Amino acid sequence: MTNGLTDWLKEHFEIEFQRTELLDEAFTHASYVNEHPNQNLKYYERIEFLGDAVMQLAVSEYLFLRYPSLPEGKLSRLRAAMVCEDSFSKFAVECHFDQYIRLGKGEEKSQARQRPSLLCDIFESFIGALYLDQGKPAVDKFISQIVFPKIDLGWFDHLLDHKTELQEFLQQDGDVDIEYHELENDGPEHDKRYTMTVSADGELLGQGQGHSKKAAEQAAAREALIKLHANK
Amino acid sequence: MTNGLTDWLKEHFEIEFQRTELLDEAFTHASYVNEHPNQNLKYYERIEFLGDAVMQLAVSEYLFLRYPSLPEGKLSRLRAAMVCEDSFSKFAVECHFDQYIRLGKGEEKSQARQRPSLLCDIFESFIGALYLDQGKPAVDKFISQIVFPKIDLGWFDHLLDHKTELQEFLQQDGDVDIEYHELENDGPEHDKRYTMTVSADGELLGQGQGHSKKAAEQAAAREALIKLHANK
Repeated sequence: MTNGLTDWLKEHFEIEFQRTELLDEAFTHASYVNEHPNQNLKYYERIEFLGDAVMQLAVSEYLFLRYPSLPEGKLSRLRAAMVCEDSFSKFAVECHFDQYIRLGKGEEKSQARQRPSLLCDIFESFIGALYLDQGKPAVDKFISQIVFPKIDLGWFDHLLDHKTELQEFLQQDGDVDIEYHELENDGPEHDKRYTMTVSADGELLGQGQGHSKKAAEQAAAREALIKLHANK
Repeated sequence: MTNGLTDWLKEHFEIEFQRTELLDEAFTHASYVNEHPNQNLKYYERIEFLGDAVMQLAVSEYLFLRYPSLPEGKLSRLRAAMVCEDSFSKFAVECHFDQYIRLGKGEEKSQARQRPSLLCDIFESFIGALYLDQGKPAVDKFISQIVFPKIDLGWFDHLLDHKTELQEFLQQDGDVDIEYHELENDGPEHDKRYTMTVSADGELLGQGQGHSKKAAEQAAAREALIKLHANK
């Protein structure tokens, strides 16, 4: 690939491909292959088929291990929210992958480069190529930078209950006394902002803000979990 | 697990679990847990969630590598035929897993032990447990004994074109002259049986039978592929 992708990956993700032809395949759209019939090019669909399955497993495994008490139904809903066009197309843009897609002229004109379905495909095909070139540990490392932090950034909070998660995390090794306290609230009555803290056995673990006490408690629990996971 | 599953796995599949509690979880139905509330048991659904994703990837990877020229659409149809309740429930019975499921009495009475959906779940949860205990290489080894040979046994022939596959396999390193010949046909006109051979550059590679020349050619190509893959 002469368009700078290999340098970009090396510089920003410390990823160096051995088989760069896999990257070529992963970033080439069928429309580009059709316009260059004599170059014996491959387009990304087969490698995306593989990458899709790699992402399913990598995300499943992460959720299974991170949430040891979450029932299967909730794990499935969380996985569905993470492994989807909406999320993957955002990851693709975050990684600047949109700039490196090889598109035919017609597709370029019709703004395919911004189309979420194509961006999602390219994210998956990149994952497929990385898996083939360097195996699952490299994929796990990459998505632990790009995908999993989104959980702590709150992308999937509507599906998560951080207070329950914190309780289960802290009580793995026995009973712990978890308490939430209101630190302050300000703003006018119709737009109050609460700040809550959470502590375990008297030790302050986190604090969070929200427009209700409940939302501020969830934010405090999320902050506590981030710290606890970082210190593990 | 005191019911002989660990011995069975060791004897028939050379699989020895380190964390046998994973096997307990994988073979325990929720109805059994409900009937034994004081034993702090887990049931298989979480581990099945993981096993499902492991199977998706393992089968995808196998198909991707085995059929280097098959387009994504055909790979997907083949995967869907392999990763499904019908196939997995048969694999579960073939491995005698049905005998080791821990079921509640009510479920036992309603013949849950023979129910394809439950058998499929148990096959997946076993795969999830094996993955957690021993990683993907152990899963790949197990399903290369149980799952992939079914391709060569013809389970998915309605989705495959062995003649095209043989041609692509043989022509990877350049042109090869592939010829099919009728060796014989017998039986009455309304029930003829054809025997066809296939050779490459004059070397006989396989023969096959069928009720039409076309079916016999497909069978011959399949036999040739089995031999070629075995000699790789």
